Amino acid sequence: MSETRYDWLSDRWVIFAPRRLKRPDEFLHSSFDKKPTHFVCPFCAGNEHNTPVEVLTLPPQTRQSRGWQVRVVPNKFPALDPIPESVYRSPFEVFGGIARSEASTSTIEKTSTSVMFQTRPLHGAHEVIIESPDHTISLSEISESHSLLVLEAYRRRLSHWRAHDSLRYACVFKNVGTDAGASLSHAHSQLIATSFVPPDVRRSCQRLQEYSEIHNHHYFEELAEQELESGERIIIESENFVCFAPYASPVPYFVSILPKRRRSRFEEIDDAMMIEFNKLVRQIIESIERCLPNTSYNFVLHTGPYDPGWDHVYHWRMEIFPRITKAAGFEWGSDCYINPVLPETAAAELSEKVQCSRI
Amino acid sequence: MSETRYDWLSDRWVIFAPRRLKRPDEFLHSSFDKKPTHFVCPFCAGNEHNTPVEVLTLPPQTRQSRGWQVRVVPNKFPALDPIPESVYRSPFEVFGGIARSEASTSTIEKTSTSVMFQTRPLHGAHEVIIESPDHTISLSEISESHSLLVLEAYRRRLSHWRAHDSLRYACVFKNVGTDAGASLSHAHSQLIATSFVPPDVRRSCQRLQEYSEIHNHHYFEELAEQELESGERIIIESENFVCFAPYASPVPYFVSILPKRRRSRFEEIDDAMMIEFNKLVRQIIESIERCLPNTSYNFVLHTGPYDPGWDHVYHWRMEIFPRITKAAGFEWGSDCYINPVLPETAAAELSEKVQCSRI
Repeated sequence: MSETRYDWLSDRWVIFAPRRLKRPDEFLHSSFDKKPTHFVCPFCAGNEHNTPVEVLTLPPQTRQSRGWQVRVVPNKFPALDPIPESVYRSPFEVFGGIARSEASTSTIEKTSTSVMFQTRPLHGAHEVIIESPDHTISLSEISESHSLLVLEAYRRRLSHWRAHDSLRYACVFKNVGTDAGASLSHAHSQLIATSFVPPDVRRSCQRLQEYSEIHNHHYFEELAEQELESGERIIIESENFVCFAPYASPVPYFVSILPKRRRSRFEEIDDAMMIEFNKLVRQIIESIERCLPNTSYNFVLHTGPYDPGWDHVYHWRMEIFPRITKAAGFEWGSDCYINPVLPETAAAELSEKVQCSRI
Repeated sequence: MSETRYDWLSDRWVIFAPRRLKRPDEFLHSSFDKKPTHFVCPFCAGNEHNTPVEVLTLPPQTRQSRGWQVRVVPNKFPALDPIPESVYRSPFEVFGGIARSEASTSTIEKTSTSVMFQTRPLHGAHEVIIESPDHTISLSEISESHSLLVLEAYRRRLSHWRAHDSLRYACVFKNVGTDAGASLSHAHSQLIATSFVPPDVRRSCQRLQEYSEIHNHHYFEELAEQELESGERIIIESENFVCFAPYASPVPYFVSILPKRRRSRFEEIDDAMMIEFNKLVRQIIESIERCLPNTSYNFVLHTGPYDPGWDHVYHWRMEIFPRITKAAGFEWGSDCYINPVLPETAAAELSEKVQCSRI
């Protein structure tokens, strides 16, 4: 029996087709490809000269040394151009000549007038958060106090870039394994800050605002309550968070770690919340690793765009999603995902593994 | 130097970052995974009993025999439920109780009133077009007259499903290689017909209509003219088609095969157009295979939704895209692609390989 489910926020339908799990698969898959023996990992301690100079080390180091636990460096192969010096110097002058608060609520300004071939320059920051001096692969291999430093690096770098008036948006994400787009195995995450708000993020802000206006309640707070009430897709709950497999999960074993009460910005949470969040992220990653050994996964830490105009509606959260299916022709043609695992099944399996890890 | 380019139809920006091609890659990749030796291919002639009974064979066969060149069967592991018998019998009764022309122009009807947990049944057709009785992998391994039969199968099956009033949309797509989502290597394509128009397809119809109203010209006809005028991204041109790398290609070596004059439905093109289209599809696939050996790819054949209300704006076309990059955390978080290859570079490389194949 197939079923479609609607994701209100993205306005997308997802097709659930559990029978497709039984398909024969001619290919032998290995998500973690072999590592050539002569590869020198640029992220390991001792190889710091192979990366750009660090912008942050934790614990703070007075000079490049082996004492770091977490090290943040500019990406050597950035996806976007570094912020021009001129922009650093004039905090109120922004890209495109439009004041930030105005630009971010209007349609994105374009530097070309042709409908067909519109382009514009892009600048921003692309940083790598190296999560350990040793060649660890997973957050689950480092201690709880160590992974807390990783989150602290996110908090500091997100706050750092928010202070730049030429930027409008940032997110932190992690690619683990080749199927998730990683090119290096050493545990690391990335931060991209951009001079524009991606259209999809802008649309989701507009949807959240629309929901608040119509229902007089915040979408994700309502969702957290309804998920807890239903209980069918809950993986783990803590005082301030709920971890669940979303009703219209686009891919199998998709997990949302959602604060129960709306706050716009991850980087402004207090230390107690961060300690609680750290424990949950570790538990979810460990449960995914137990359920689906050697599977690639991504996570995205969504935090509010920099325009304070969205602060009253945005709800920061983390989404973690293993990469066991591949978007094929139909998904590309229709933007409609086919998911062979119901979220109720995924939540039950992941929840069982979380409980095991507590014993 | 990074650059963003806007895709007007999807309202998405794509980030071009050619420098990212120089990233080190620790992993040894192999897009075509090893085939276990004992796998019995269900698509090879002689194994017809391993698939559901065929709905079409070309050339037409009076009974299951070895004479077929192309064979269409229902997918044994369909993504959606088969059309219920009752719907076959009452051509004007449609899913959800809403007449088709009304439903397809309104917001999609929902069977649940909860914003959070909306679901609805889905039915339709999911078919496999087996492209050869032999264990060939690529369209380029079969003759021109043979691949014309594959297109003929698309035409017939798309026409077949269009006649069913309970369906609203169909597309044909092809997944080649594991990175493109294929689970079997034997050359095949698929057709999915659904009882609803996917939101992304509906949005693109609305955008096309909007363009026509504002500019008094069809979007894709204008695009074909401007691409030909510019010449920078053209791979090959024929009397009725232009093949090019779109200005805001979301992934490297993305190719569009576009009819110069707007027609809504692929399945209504005449034989001469189909012969011309067949030659181009083969040339593009061969050029991709030469430029990027052993690379997975997808294609999608976009044809107009079944509501005749969109016939005056839709423009059928084919999109072919190799899978050399992987959507990672940032793409998932922002719906904004990072493409390391400019379409001008891709077009030049592919075009050179097309020309080689003509000599």
